Amino acid sequence: VSDIAQSLKPLFDPESIAVIGASNDVMKFGGRPIRYMKEAGFEGRIFPVNPKGGEIQGLAAYSDVREIPEPVDMAVVSVPAAGVVAQIEACAEAGVKGAVIFSSGFAETSSEGEAWQARLSEIAASSGTRLVGPNCMGMLNVKSHAIGTFSSMFDHGWPRPGNITILSQSGAVGSHTLVLARERGLGVRGWMTTGNECDVDVADCMMFAAEDPETQVIAIYMEGCRQPERLIEALETARRQRKPVVVLKVGASEVGAVAANSHTASLAGADAVFDAVYRQYGAHRAHSLEELLEISAAASAGQFPSSNRLGVATISGGVGVMSCDAAAANGLEVPALPERAQRELKELMPFAAVRNPVDTTAQMLNDVGLLRRNMEVLLAHGEVDATLLFMSSIGFSPYLMPQIKEVLPGVREQFPDELIFFSAMLRPDDKAFFEDLKFTCIEDPTRAIEAIGALVRFGQSFARAEAETPPTLPAGARPAPAETLNEVAAGALLRDAGLPVVESRLTENAEEAAEAAAALGFPVVLKVVSPEIQHKSEVGGVRVGLADAAAVRQAHNEIVASVAEKAPGAAVDGIMVAPMVSGGVETILGVHADPVFGPTVMFGLGGIFVEVLKDVTFRVAPFGLDEARCMIREVKGYPLLEGARGQPPADVEALAEALARLSVFAAENRETVDGIDLNPFLVLEKGRGAVALDALVVPRTK
Amino acid sequence: VSDIAQSLKPLFDPESIAVIGASNDVMKFGGRPIRYMKEAGFEGRIFPVNPKGGEIQGLAAYSDVREIPEPVDMAVVSVPAAGVVAQIEACAEAGVKGAVIFSSGFAETSSEGEAWQARLSEIAASSGTRLVGPNCMGMLNVKSHAIGTFSSMFDHGWPRPGNITILSQSGAVGSHTLVLARERGLGVRGWMTTGNECDVDVADCMMFAAEDPETQVIAIYMEGCRQPERLIEALETARRQRKPVVVLKVGASEVGAVAANSHTASLAGADAVFDAVYRQYGAHRAHSLEELLEISAAASAGQFPSSNRLGVATISGGVGVMSCDAAAANGLEVPALPERAQRELKELMPFAAVRNPVDTTAQMLNDVGLLRRNMEVLLAHGEVDATLLFMSSIGFSPYLMPQIKEVLPGVREQFPDELIFFSAMLRPDDKAFFEDLKFTCIEDPTRAIEAIGALVRFGQSFARAEAETPPTLPAGARPAPAETLNEVAAGALLRDAGLPVVESRLTENAEEAAEAAAALGFPVVLKVVSPEIQHKSEVGGVRVGLADAAAVRQAHNEIVASVAEKAPGAAVDGIMVAPMVSGGVETILGVHADPVFGPTVMFGLGGIFVEVLKDVTFRVAPFGLDEARCMIREVKGYPLLEGARGQPPADVEALAEALARLSVFAAENRETVDGIDLNPFLVLEKGRGAVALDALVVPRTK
Repeated sequence: VSDIAQSLKPLFDPESIAVIGASNDVMKFGGRPIRYMKEAGFEGRIFPVNPKGGEIQGLAAYSDVREIPEPVDMAVVSVPAAGVVAQIEACAEAGVKGAVIFSSGFAETSSEGEAWQARLSEIAASSGTRLVGPNCMGMLNVKSHAIGTFSSMFDHGWPRPGNITILSQSGAVGSHTLVLARERGLGVRGWMTTGNECDVDVADCMMFAAEDPETQVIAIYMEGCRQPERLIEALETARRQRKPVVVLKVGASEVGAVAANSHTASLAGADAVFDAVYRQYGAHRAHSLEELLEISAAASAGQFPSSNRLGVATISGGVGVMSCDAAAANGLEVPALPERAQRELKELMPFAAVRNPVDTTAQMLNDVGLLRRNMEVLLAHGEVDATLLFMSSIGFSPYLMPQIKEVLPGVREQFPDELIFFSAMLRPDDKAFFEDLKFTCIEDPTRAIEAIGALVRFGQSFARAEAETPPTLPAGARPAPAETLNEVAAGALLRDAGLPVVESRLTENAEEAAEAAAALGFPVVLKVVSPEIQHKSEVGGVRVGLADAAAVRQAHNEIVASVAEKAPGAAVDGIMVAPMVSGGVETILGVHADPVFGPTVMFGLGGIFVEVLKDVTFRVAPFGLDEARCMIREVKGYPLLEGARGQPPADVEALAEALARLSVFAAENRETVDGIDLNPFLVLEKGRGAVALDALVVPRTK
Repeated sequence: VSDIAQSLKPLFDPESIAVIGASNDVMKFGGRPIRYMKEAGFEGRIFPVNPKGGEIQGLAAYSDVREIPEPVDMAVVSVPAAGVVAQIEACAEAGVKGAVIFSSGFAETSSEGEAWQARLSEIAASSGTRLVGPNCMGMLNVKSHAIGTFSSMFDHGWPRPGNITILSQSGAVGSHTLVLARERGLGVRGWMTTGNECDVDVADCMMFAAEDPETQVIAIYMEGCRQPERLIEALETARRQRKPVVVLKVGASEVGAVAANSHTASLAGADAVFDAVYRQYGAHRAHSLEELLEISAAASAGQFPSSNRLGVATISGGVGVMSCDAAAANGLEVPALPERAQRELKELMPFAAVRNPVDTTAQMLNDVGLLRRNMEVLLAHGEVDATLLFMSSIGFSPYLMPQIKEVLPGVREQFPDELIFFSAMLRPDDKAFFEDLKFTCIEDPTRAIEAIGALVRFGQSFARAEAETPPTLPAGARPAPAETLNEVAAGALLRDAGLPVVESRLTENAEEAAEAAAALGFPVVLKVVSPEIQHKSEVGGVRVGLADAAAVRQAHNEIVASVAEKAPGAAVDGIMVAPMVSGGVETILGVHADPVFGPTVMFGLGGIFVEVLKDVTFRVAPFGLDEARCMIREVKGYPLLEGARGQPPADVEALAEALARLSVFAAENRETVDGIDLNPFLVLEKGRGAVALDALVVPRTK
């Protein structure tokens, strides 16, 4: 277990809790946690802290946290903002392992608050006391009844203990989510809201959950991220541990991102890069609270098929068709069942459609024994990875429901490890009955299939959990310098790093140009190289298709003359000579320094794909070949690389290698490089490699 | 009211019902309707029909429907398939106005059944007795308690009367949907399942609902359509009547379409064309049962803003951000509130974010009076068309809920016509309370915004409800002949219909070619015209860029010689001469005869847009200019026509005119034409028009 997880354990599993600002008034923030813990029966010790001392809610109170005679795992701090720093200093002095700070009035409010918050960060760093908040709603341990929150949600019910850890940067969304989870009967292991994140942030908590043996699913609400490396480490760890991560990250729209920035002090980061990171590590990105809960609930049963064959058993043919549509939309196959299975089903139910979906019609309701045999055949001989059973409004039948409740436990006993979703209108107690048997119950069949799709994607991601090693750069690779390079130097730098950039030379006179052309091979292109000339063609600075030495000499002289006339006084580095390359599929490779994740590689097809359709995809650097291949397949224009429109297939492997190498180069030079463009990057016919015709390296500006 | 609606009224609103195959056994299909009607208190008359006569469930039974001494609106037929035809003949003879046939064993089973079903269709056509089914689940009138179904759903509850008419081709999906509607508290006006559709089909029922004063929302499950003109007429009527149509049409995926065909005998039709038809008439296409119900419920409140400005009031900033994301994804704006509104809100709640979303934070819960003032400012001065109020788990607060229930009725009284969605966890009775006040309650804020998006799209569609008149063709337009035309003749035919096809001439010798070229204007292109030569370039049959008469003569002779050599014996119509045209944006216009909807116009951008991205859109012919403009804006490549990539904007109006005219030409020639291609169709710079370089007209094959 990592140090980070170790340091957060007293906050997720506290055995002794000090409540600083404790109150006898059970409606006050400093009174509620004590009251709720007493009511729920927290098994650890509670130490109210209040300058007045005495007794609070029947417990001995201390006037200062330093007076508590025992070790304190967690302090809950509910005093006005101006008094928080002193209390946290006291906690650090007393060796309190962690503190949850409810108080608001920090960085979200004023510059004074910002200073206080900065001081809190310092205390955390120097003392090792981990701080959650300020301006947060606190934490909850469902099993031990440790309550470090002022939420009043326990007035109307207690969540069920289970294996889902819920994390939220927002207190209000966090408590809303926890109530939703309770209402839906989800099993919750722990709950943490991180607020202003002066110390502990959501990525730290993810890391704890990823390593925590009691957590099997991590459900997250987030707006931004302060520790991108930690986030990626946590995602990697969770994947290695086969723990699904379900994340509702807001700020996808521009107006949403603006609102997110006004809501917390988080750095939102380009949403597309967040999206790429989640995809890269197999996290499921939910787009509503409902989806966050539904996918988390489905995942908590712990079954993740790594292939995508769906069997459907339905008492309605129409729902069968609907299921096929939903399966196709979610990357699932509904394959025809093997002949043996079809034959057995037909013998069993001559009236049924048996291909898959298996449509038993309402006849199955006349003989529930058929349900058992139907499921046995489907599960034993159907060769499917997941099964959806649709039974409409069966839950309302006082006659049939008891029979179904006799049949399905036997099916589960016989097939303990099969992923089975049960889609029907069920009363809450019946739903709980089937969920205890690991039948995931989702009333709407389309939504059930969406959830199955998510579980299959988790399974596929877990199957390739071992992070691949990014390639190493060739021995001759040089670090990127801090200053600006012209295109010839930039090309040489990237070529030395193993990237296929067309070789070019900078020449000073016509004779040098002719020699360079002969060395590089005709035909060639000539271009003026000058940091002061942006539009080279407009000043007569470009000549293409030069087939021999004479043409090169003449073109060189003409360029020099034209530039002198049209851009008088411009500093000119020289005239670049490069071989002409044509053909292949035009793509664009780029790197930018993402404000959150740092060097990030972009890939897209050239021309209208990038300019009109914005058909691009991202990965955080560095990454390996497999990841590069995934990236390439993600763009809509991918069929062009496979050889659409009668073209030969392109050299996708060469492209993948270039992307992976570019990512390594970008990561290694993150301190000096802000951006790289290889545009156009031509992917030639399979086996013939790829080549960038132009290279740009933008140095870091600050 | 149309004849069709008139003829269906006795089936939707029967006042006297004969039950043929009536039974004393209340579990039997022939027993259930009588039992349920008696229990529910149907106010009309019930006539059991059974060969044994006597008394059934306490009612006088008749041995034959013809013996019933009073007029019968509707007969419910529940006898084995083999006996149905005789019973329906009797009904027709007795002047029964309509019959619902439960019995299965018709076209879905065997050729014998198919013959029986054909006979039923004949009887319906000749007698005027409207027939629903066979193999259907029947009908329901919620208000009058007329029950023409064997569904046992009434064992566990009765739907609430209201304004939603539910139609389904599938009985099982239909009854499932009705139970879902009941459980969600939706108000249902009528329910009809159409089964095998020997006479009455789903489009007929849509037409009834569109004209029915008691129906305000039409919710449909469908798999295919037998009467496309009726479907379109019903969609048009519903739009004119400002009645939202929400449709769950399955078979979107290939495997789904196959399953749909095996499930009913319906002709599924290309799903993309169905999709285009729904879009064209402003119907909302739902992709799950849940969405079908949720959008229908939201629509039943009858408020449809025609512009898209959304106001959000939330006690959670995080949900505010989420709402912005959801709004952007659903075509809604979350505009900054006018200065006055922001000022007023800030005075009211100094702690709040007031730009929009208005984040009151949980402080609003401390003073519910703030809620009222907040809503007043937002609704009176916010200049928004729809408002979402998010209040988290407020429904669980026994202290706050009564206060909210005092405040919100006042808000509604003050703003009776504003569209307000209330997103919170609510107990069922509280939800009903707010819904009676026309606050639409959807717990999940993202889903609430999806529903608002749908209502706005309905409003926008209603605003342009007057179907525009398609253009008329020019006086010189000729009908398309039944035989195949070569490209010159096809071009001339379409040119005469007012379509911009490049003028070309068929020539027999070099001299004629040179003359034609001079007349058309240089440079020109020459092409061999032959029904037997598919790949003209391969036989040396194409020459481009011919700049003068001499070049034309020489090219003509060379083409003739090359074709004679490489395609000896091929019948040649002549050599086509046409002016060269270049530039503009390459598009494709096409017509195909859709198996369901008939002549259907396709539009797409050329090249990779069509070939790689399948970026095309459809409309059923004929249509007008406005519809053509919508169509053009639908393709992803549309920015290219607007002038992306530094190009001048293209002549979109000329393109729209061509599409509308093409649709009229296709509709007028539906009997003789199977397909038309204008490819490439170049849309030139704005003001310069458009021109097709090639034209193909495919005659009807049978």
